[in-house]
Amino acid sequence: MSQQTRRIVLAARPSGAPKPTDFRLDIADLPALKDGEFMVEVIWLTLDPYMRGRMDDAKSYAQPVPIGGVMEGQGVGRVLASNTSKYNEGDYVLGGFGWQSHAVSDGTATRKLDPKDAPLSTAVGVMGMPGLTAFVGLNDHGRPQKGETLVVSAASGAVGSLVGQLGKIYGLRVVGVAGGAEKCRYVVDELGFDACIDHRAGDAKSLSAEIGQACPDGIDIYFENVGGKTLEAVIAHMNVASRIPVCGMIAWYSGAGEPEGAMVKKLWRTILVNRIAVRGFIIFDHYDRLPDFTKEVGGYLRDGKIKYRESIAQGLENAPDAFMKLLEGGNFGKQLVQIAPDPTRD
Amino acid sequence: MSQQTRRIVLAARPSGAPKPTDFRLDIADLPALKDGEFMVEVIWLTLDPYMRGRMDDAKSYAQPVPIGGVMEGQGVGRVLASNTSKYNEGDYVLGGFGWQSHAVSDGTATRKLDPKDAPLSTAVGVMGMPGLTAFVGLNDHGRPQKGETLVVSAASGAVGSLVGQLGKIYGLRVVGVAGGAEKCRYVVDELGFDACIDHRAGDAKSLSAEIGQACPDGIDIYFENVGGKTLEAVIAHMNVASRIPVCGMIAWYSGAGEPEGAMVKKLWRTILVNRIAVRGFIIFDHYDRLPDFTKEVGGYLRDGKIKYRESIAQGLENAPDAFMKLLEGGNFGKQLVQIAPDPTRD
Repeated sequence: MSQQTRRIVLAARPSGAPKPTDFRLDIADLPALKDGEFMVEVIWLTLDPYMRGRMDDAKSYAQPVPIGGVMEGQGVGRVLASNTSKYNEGDYVLGGFGWQSHAVSDGTATRKLDPKDAPLSTAVGVMGMPGLTAFVGLNDHGRPQKGETLVVSAASGAVGSLVGQLGKIYGLRVVGVAGGAEKCRYVVDELGFDACIDHRAGDAKSLSAEIGQACPDGIDIYFENVGGKTLEAVIAHMNVASRIPVCGMIAWYSGAGEPEGAMVKKLWRTILVNRIAVRGFIIFDHYDRLPDFTKEVGGYLRDGKIKYRESIAQGLENAPDAFMKLLEGGNFGKQLVQIAPDPTRD
Repeated sequence: MSQQTRRIVLAARPSGAPKPTDFRLDIADLPALKDGEFMVEVIWLTLDPYMRGRMDDAKSYAQPVPIGGVMEGQGVGRVLASNTSKYNEGDYVLGGFGWQSHAVSDGTATRKLDPKDAPLSTAVGVMGMPGLTAFVGLNDHGRPQKGETLVVSAASGAVGSLVGQLGKIYGLRVVGVAGGAEKCRYVVDELGFDACIDHRAGDAKSLSAEIGQACPDGIDIYFENVGGKTLEAVIAHMNVASRIPVCGMIAWYSGAGEPEGAMVKKLWRTILVNRIAVRGFIIFDHYDRLPDFTKEVGGYLRDGKIKYRESIAQGLENAPDAFMKLLEGGNFGKQLVQIAPDPTRD
């Protein structure tokens, strides 16, 4: 008898914000294991804003998910059966298993996890792709210098929260931008940012005034996660020779919030006049930095210098809803879906 | 009796494109020479697009010209009187003498010129600031690799024409964008670009299609001089890991050509998805590259590998008109104003 998998497939390409009918839960038989393959039960699935791009048919850095295809995503699984010497039954493995309960893998882009190193769920969070993104973006593209001012958008999110905490460790003034008073309190009180501004409290103009007040020496690094009115508000305060690592633009992913045309000129002019280095980056280009990241940030985590927060949806069937909320900023910390029990967790 | 100077002063701050009444020709007495100072008769004045920015009261990398102040600009002068051992009567000197017939200088940011090295006028053109801008922007921010594709806007201008010729020397495919069939012919037939596209011949969409055809392998470097619809047309063809040195945006200097809001998202998204490095730069930050530039480009010039073209307005009184035409692309080659005879020129 073959193993079945419950899975979320792309039912339709969304126009703007995804809606429930763009997803479908179905059940399928997994293929029999070939030589070199193994099968996992997926425990943790991560949801990340970049997945919105995969739902579109547009040219991007990765192929779109086909209609009827399983939604893509990284997860942590436990090996139930193995035809490879690489993994044994019971091993915990990180891999691109997709939005489903079980998956067969040939081992491409997978890695064994030791639950004694760190909680399994952190392999898709602070110690995984979001963490590496924060580390590479801040260090390699932000090039921070002690005493400089760093502004981080989506400050309470998986990437932003680590960017800001690293910034504090490196001796920067760190100002977050987040959605809502509760997130802002967390960013300052728990994560130790110097200030955090609520982008929901006003328009781009008042946001810009608040950012200006929080950054009396201007901004040397703007870690860009959101685009939209936060970008518009920040740009007026960028210093000469400042840097903008462009990591994401969640405010624009679903087509909302059309900026004004004058914004292009303002942006381009500021880049010229202030000699700004803007650098788009995708973490797939930077896996060579994984050892440095793991050593440095793993150390901070063990020493309690880095905090992280998880927002956990229970059950695969709740993944679409959790993802739609994530795109609207409804999560609070790294968004995960728990699909099966985690035996290593209390 | 003190020396008089005829000068063009800023009469009013322009709104949008400058008009004749924003300038005024007047006559003033120069102050007596103090110790360490010298006085020149200005022969060559250069007109450059950046000067439009100095007419505004906006925060920029340099102070605005005050109302009633002499318009700023570099020029080549001949020393008529000297109270400094640095220069003797009859020496030719490069300096920021402004839009005027005579000037007193304390020697700050001046340099003696030898007319045997190169024609005097090239000190404010191909061997001067525009040339250094081309050299630094292409090499340090464009980081060209043999076989890559380079697109240069304002391709027949002082900066663009050198960028493209250097690109050909470095083994790149070079595609220019210029205004009008005559300039395009010059860029291909005289300067040796592989192709040149006339941005006046169509809208952004047809321009984009033509650029796509001329760049079958996409664009690795876009040397940005203009902004506007050329930027919009180019952005769709940028390759992964491509570079955009931002040198100027003449299409937007006078406020014309409001882009659509969607352009911001398109631009920002392309920067992210294609991991583009965008770098604004101002040549004042890069004077340390002057020796390398002078050696390399001076050699090309002597060997006849580099061509340049001058557009000369005769007489100081014609400077405002020549400048207004320059902002509309009405020049053809480096725009100069000849204020006094050049004894070294045939």
